[in-house]
Amino acid sequence: MNTLVLDDADREALKRPFIQALLTLIRAQDRSGAMEADTDEELLAPFVVTKVQKRDIPMFGDPDPDILGRVEQIYMAICWLIERETGIAAAPIMNIHHEGWGRIVIITGRLIAVNAYVRELHRFGYENLVQMETKALKLVEEGIAAIRQFPDVAAA
Amino acid sequence: MNTLVLDDADREALKRPFIQALLTLIRAQDRSGAMEADTDEELLAPFVVTKVQKRDIPMFGDPDPDILGRVEQIYMAICWLIERETGIAAAPIMNIHHEGWGRIVIITGRLIAVNAYVRELHRFGYENLVQMETKALKLVEEGIAAIRQFPDVAAA
Repeated sequence: MNTLVLDDADREALKRPFIQALLTLIRAQDRSGAMEADTDEELLAPFVVTKVQKRDIPMFGDPDPDILGRVEQIYMAICWLIERETGIAAAPIMNIHHEGWGRIVIITGRLIAVNAYVRELHRFGYENLVQMETKALKLVEEGIAAIRQFPDVAAA
Repeated sequence: MNTLVLDDADREALKRPFIQALLTLIRAQDRSGAMEADTDEELLAPFVVTKVQKRDIPMFGDPDPDILGRVEQIYMAICWLIERETGIAAAPIMNIHHEGWGRIVIITGRLIAVNAYVRELHRFGYENLVQMETKALKLVEEGIAAIRQFPDVAAA
């Protein structure tokens, strides 16, 4: 199994809420216990794909179903942080074309708290954990701001 | 090719906006012109599946991809009617599990104008055109009411 070699910044990011939430989700979904002995660095390794590695991933064919699972885990963790901050349940809806592009929205009540477009999912992955956290927190903040702007719709 | 035998009520429904919108969409998506010579009754035939016919459709395996296309056409036509009434662009997002159940939302701005759950899509179809129109118009009305309740969110 692959593992990650973390620098100091990534080691700090690993301890913060977003990546902790992601790890909790990954472990919660491991119903067979197959990953029980895996370290955090092993569980996070598939989420990190460097630019050089991406160049070697072909864009034809459909993206690996495991990738869609990881995208969903990222958006679930984002929902979790939104929920923790606002107290309002958030859920992702993913509409991904089989060729690897699409739209993901996070819904709270009747509000679209987050609206994201994704593409080239064949090559889904982040440069490092800090980049993953930064991008995720941007969506968390977008969601929280939308809920605060339209609280009655988010509670509808 | 199958065709429909219409009673008087269905013949009237065929002339009204929802089914006219659906037909326009179907014909617009027929880029190869393969359906150019088909009558309205032939184009609508796959949307009508009686209870007796449904009983014979097995629920195992994945639903026919053509079915998902028809579900999308129904929701696109619903969007079109919402848009015509409110002047606000509406778009469906379908999140359908491959086993034939899922969630469909219609989005206007940041508002979820319509929130629908679907299941047993293997057996997707309506008893007749009047039933199809009635069910669709219920969602059109739900969408219009939501937009009127939260106009600033729908325009966001």
